[in-house]
Amino acid sequence: MNKLTKKAIDYLKVLSAEMVSNAGSGHTGVSLGASSILFALFKDHYNFDVSDTDYLNRDRFVMSAGHGSAVYYSLLSMFGFDVSLQDLQNYRKFGATTAGHPEFGTIGAIETSTGPLGQGVANAVGMAIAESYLEERFNAIGFPVINNFTYCFAGDGDLMEGVALEACALAGSYNLKRFILLYDSNDVTMDGRTDLSTRENISKKFKAMGFKVIFVKRGNDYTACTRAIAKAKKVGKPCIIIFKTTIGIGTEQQGTSAMHSHPLSPEELKNFKAKLGIKESFFIPSDVRDLCLQTTIAGKLAHEKWNQNFAVYGTTHPELYKKLLSFFDNKKIDFEKIISNDKFSNMSMRSINHIFLNELAEKLPQMIGGAADVASSTQAYLENGGDFVAGNKRGRNLRFGVREHAMAGIVNGIALYEDFLPFDSTFLSFSNYSIPALRMRALMKLPVIDFFTHDSIIVGEDGPTHQPIEQLGQLRSIIGLNVFRPADANELAAAYKHFIMNRVPVSIVLARQKIEQTGLSSFKGASMGGYVLKNVSGKAKVVIYSSGSEVPLAVSVANELDKMNISASVVSFPCISLFEEQTDSYKTKVLQKDADLRVVIEASNDAIWFKYLNDKDLRIGIEKYLSSANGEILYQKAGFSLKQILKQILKKVK
Amino acid sequence: MNKLTKKAIDYLKVLSAEMVSNAGSGHTGVSLGASSILFALFKDHYNFDVSDTDYLNRDRFVMSAGHGSAVYYSLLSMFGFDVSLQDLQNYRKFGATTAGHPEFGTIGAIETSTGPLGQGVANAVGMAIAESYLEERFNAIGFPVINNFTYCFAGDGDLMEGVALEACALAGSYNLKRFILLYDSNDVTMDGRTDLSTRENISKKFKAMGFKVIFVKRGNDYTACTRAIAKAKKVGKPCIIIFKTTIGIGTEQQGTSAMHSHPLSPEELKNFKAKLGIKESFFIPSDVRDLCLQTTIAGKLAHEKWNQNFAVYGTTHPELYKKLLSFFDNKKIDFEKIISNDKFSNMSMRSINHIFLNELAEKLPQMIGGAADVASSTQAYLENGGDFVAGNKRGRNLRFGVREHAMAGIVNGIALYEDFLPFDSTFLSFSNYSIPALRMRALMKLPVIDFFTHDSIIVGEDGPTHQPIEQLGQLRSIIGLNVFRPADANELAAAYKHFIMNRVPVSIVLARQKIEQTGLSSFKGASMGGYVLKNVSGKAKVVIYSSGSEVPLAVSVANELDKMNISASVVSFPCISLFEEQTDSYKTKVLQKDADLRVVIEASNDAIWFKYLNDKDLRIGIEKYLSSANGEILYQKAGFSLKQILKQILKKVK
Repeated sequence: MNKLTKKAIDYLKVLSAEMVSNAGSGHTGVSLGASSILFALFKDHYNFDVSDTDYLNRDRFVMSAGHGSAVYYSLLSMFGFDVSLQDLQNYRKFGATTAGHPEFGTIGAIETSTGPLGQGVANAVGMAIAESYLEERFNAIGFPVINNFTYCFAGDGDLMEGVALEACALAGSYNLKRFILLYDSNDVTMDGRTDLSTRENISKKFKAMGFKVIFVKRGNDYTACTRAIAKAKKVGKPCIIIFKTTIGIGTEQQGTSAMHSHPLSPEELKNFKAKLGIKESFFIPSDVRDLCLQTTIAGKLAHEKWNQNFAVYGTTHPELYKKLLSFFDNKKIDFEKIISNDKFSNMSMRSINHIFLNELAEKLPQMIGGAADVASSTQAYLENGGDFVAGNKRGRNLRFGVREHAMAGIVNGIALYEDFLPFDSTFLSFSNYSIPALRMRALMKLPVIDFFTHDSIIVGEDGPTHQPIEQLGQLRSIIGLNVFRPADANELAAAYKHFIMNRVPVSIVLARQKIEQTGLSSFKGASMGGYVLKNVSGKAKVVIYSSGSEVPLAVSVANELDKMNISASVVSFPCISLFEEQTDSYKTKVLQKDADLRVVIEASNDAIWFKYLNDKDLRIGIEKYLSSANGEILYQKAGFSLKQILKQILKKVK
Repeated sequence: MNKLTKKAIDYLKVLSAEMVSNAGSGHTGVSLGASSILFALFKDHYNFDVSDTDYLNRDRFVMSAGHGSAVYYSLLSMFGFDVSLQDLQNYRKFGATTAGHPEFGTIGAIETSTGPLGQGVANAVGMAIAESYLEERFNAIGFPVINNFTYCFAGDGDLMEGVALEACALAGSYNLKRFILLYDSNDVTMDGRTDLSTRENISKKFKAMGFKVIFVKRGNDYTACTRAIAKAKKVGKPCIIIFKTTIGIGTEQQGTSAMHSHPLSPEELKNFKAKLGIKESFFIPSDVRDLCLQTTIAGKLAHEKWNQNFAVYGTTHPELYKKLLSFFDNKKIDFEKIISNDKFSNMSMRSINHIFLNELAEKLPQMIGGAADVASSTQAYLENGGDFVAGNKRGRNLRFGVREHAMAGIVNGIALYEDFLPFDSTFLSFSNYSIPALRMRALMKLPVIDFFTHDSIIVGEDGPTHQPIEQLGQLRSIIGLNVFRPADANELAAAYKHFIMNRVPVSIVLARQKIEQTGLSSFKGASMGGYVLKNVSGKAKVVIYSSGSEVPLAVSVANELDKMNISASVVSFPCISLFEEQTDSYKTKVLQKDADLRVVIEASNDAIWFKYLNDKDLRIGIEKYLSSANGEILYQKAGFSLKQILKQILKKVK
């Protein structure tokens, strides 16, 4: 390592340490310990263009150990990204782009929000899947239009998380050759030495998963780091580089957990800087800037060269070129036409969804995805898509195995890579395995659609473990996740429309059983999230709010009430959060709160419905776990029958 | 294998296949494929006493691949457990103990409910931890009072799940020498061949995790199976036996995913039985019964022998004996005394909890547990407990590493092993990593307590990924999980009391910041889940419902209103679900619904509060993700200030 490089890394370390001390919170340990790895990556390998952080073939870098944000922001600043020294000083302060953990959408370079451990690893695997998919679809001899690497920086904690282990198992199984995991192995986590909880051989574990393993004994040595990364790029399979590092290197408590989340005190910081011979604060010397600038310029040139090559590709391979240019476009979908189809009668929602998904995927090549080993049951499968496997990365169906959490994190990564419209699927009951990834998706507003089938207790014989009761409410509670529980094809179309037009996260909850057609639903109404499905003339005496599989029951109840001269309307709520976004006047009209009685019928325990009810109103829901038995029997036992509901309503109305 | 053993396994297969066909749903594939493994286990190794399925040193058997319930119930019936042939015919029917997936509490032998994949593996690791803990604490030379094995049967899907991978990493790290994983490796899951999604070397992966690996090429051969299990018992470290089996063996579609969840048709069943030369239905021949009875009797005798040994142990080691006998007893805890302590002022809830936990753990040796690598921050640590590590299994602090999901599943297993009162801990934000295990805990009503610290947006600088908003409501929505959000030491004591007296699942949500003391709280009131914390004389004009860190703010608001001659009371709700269990008259008195205005103040988006509000009332909550900044600033920005809340209330009241 030459002197200037050492100097650059020293200043990088000081910047990071100062950021944390200045903020009064954060993680000095990883920022110092990982400085050589990350400087080597940024200086010599990471392919980026600061003037266009979104160009398609840029390398993807994911800081999965998001608590190391200080060193990350410092690097971004040094290499000319849109992060000023002032931004570094504002670290963790209100309104700063330099947030406590990297946040997608704040600084162009940040490819994903990280912090909750393991999520970044799954995202990065998703990005590498997206890359390899496009690579196989669009590259031609002499035209490596897509060949970027995905680098993921992860710490000990990341690689303990199940979501990361699931994702890595997939990276190995798919043989993602441009996926490089930079593992900062410092043997220390917040609570102490890792061997308190971890005595495994990570190297052998990753080999067993199909990774090439590169071991770097001196992970705080720039030269060793850059050589290892250079090697990793050539191995032609997923690669993990195990960098043995010293947490908080250069500080008095280096190598101990005391350094994990410890801001250096003024005294400690002074000593630390003195040891490195650095006096300035929040400062990057001009020779260091110039050194970094070489890389910054090289990155721009590489992008220009890529542009030129891409232009030539346009003339030599006009069809592929055209296809790629339009690949991510929104295409016009004629929903009215799809739903005018009469083949939906006497089908289950999962089967109707299968038709929708396949029709849309024909028009939208950017729809790829899969299921957590239940595609044969959820029917979330593209018939003409083929399987994405190690030997065929053109496949549009991803076989995730029984890995719900990684699945959700991976499709997040696919959506982050570029404007894909990915999907995933499992049983509603097991949606809760993936909640942390769903929350990250909502936080980043990623256009991913999931299909959660086997809705509610009517699943029956598989018993309470498979009967979702709380899951619906748990999903709805995630801020920004648009949860649809459609009653039929019209309402399902509204969910797809919302997804495709607005490119927001959408979760669709689908019944397994065949559904009854009310003939009253409306695509337009459903597009508002909630709408009057069955109206009455004049003021309704009873208004029934319902969703999904309970809507036909709600209509039957209303019809019976009508017969008794108790006029009853039915409001269907395919998506409560979308309904909440409508104007007050629309909401007032739909909710009909002036009715004598409001009734909710939904086979879940979601408390959100209380929002629309007063003390005297009635909610028919489920408040306990049921048993393993025929679903229809359970449904009756839980009170979901015309007779039982009528009885309850009449008690209230009379 | 002799003829009679073959006959027994053939009848076992037919029983299982008939159960699934008779029920019309279920999983024939695993039931047939695993029949030799499980028959070998039950016949030759599994140590049980059908007349006392709860005795302490019985072996633990966990059917993690719970969808294989048919073969499990069939075995239970053959070996004399409380499962009749009629029960097998009632499989999956309403009211039957033979539920779709094994359910804890239905049949004595069932050690845990399984179905959601991976959970059983984590439970079994927890049982093996509990065993090894007691073994090290209580065994004496010549008196192996505790030395049972924990057998866990798992399929391909189980070992793809992150929760299982996390748990196995711990089993290896802790070197749990009596943990035996019986892996039914049939290379087929619901969606097809496993190599669609999994091309790893499981054998090497488990070796890397510290397991002894035994490979059985002929996993459908009884002799090979029983020899392998015999060997596994002697290895002195955690062991996985990889049984290569054929799914649905003996059927026309054996070895394919078509057999995964396929009930044999009458025709297929007829052919299957004909091939085995079996004509009877739901039948166990007497010679097969006699064969199994030998094991059943041997099991009883082993138990008797254990009893005798234990009695001698009582005379030779009276102190240990006495200690063990009282180990799981409920001890009287003087909560009033603990809370009379004046050291709680100016402390954070996590610090107060640290004191509580340590005081209680001194009295309750059955309290063991730990955190997901955040004990240093959540303070869920027993100061005098020592660490449970490979070399010291007397330690009461479990270092789970960053493995929230396995942690929750493992403490479930500890509670299932015997009457432990285990605890776990992480940040509230990451409680959602463990939701599937929390749901299983609630379903089984297990006495586990968790401490979720770093409550709400006031966490601040770590940003929205670390600021829990939905998590509180998601936890509260789990049926039977008693979620406490205590405002101070008095309310915290009520949470502990509820846990210890009722032995039910309790989750405690704790603030990181220092809390203000209102001086108004009440241990007794808090024990009701909700109570009037600040009263007014006569009817209140405004009633404020609040919880946890918002209670002092609610009191300030009420005091200000009082000054304006708007009488305001405050109701504190440390545990909403517990409050809901109170009498109607108590609830009515507390809720004071006759007030002119009801107001909720809680820094979450939990919709449960709408239950107590009418249209015109006011809810102060959080409906969006916030940024990374000082927590106090965020709290203000989100509307949690005296001034802002007063303004909103006055607008409504006037």
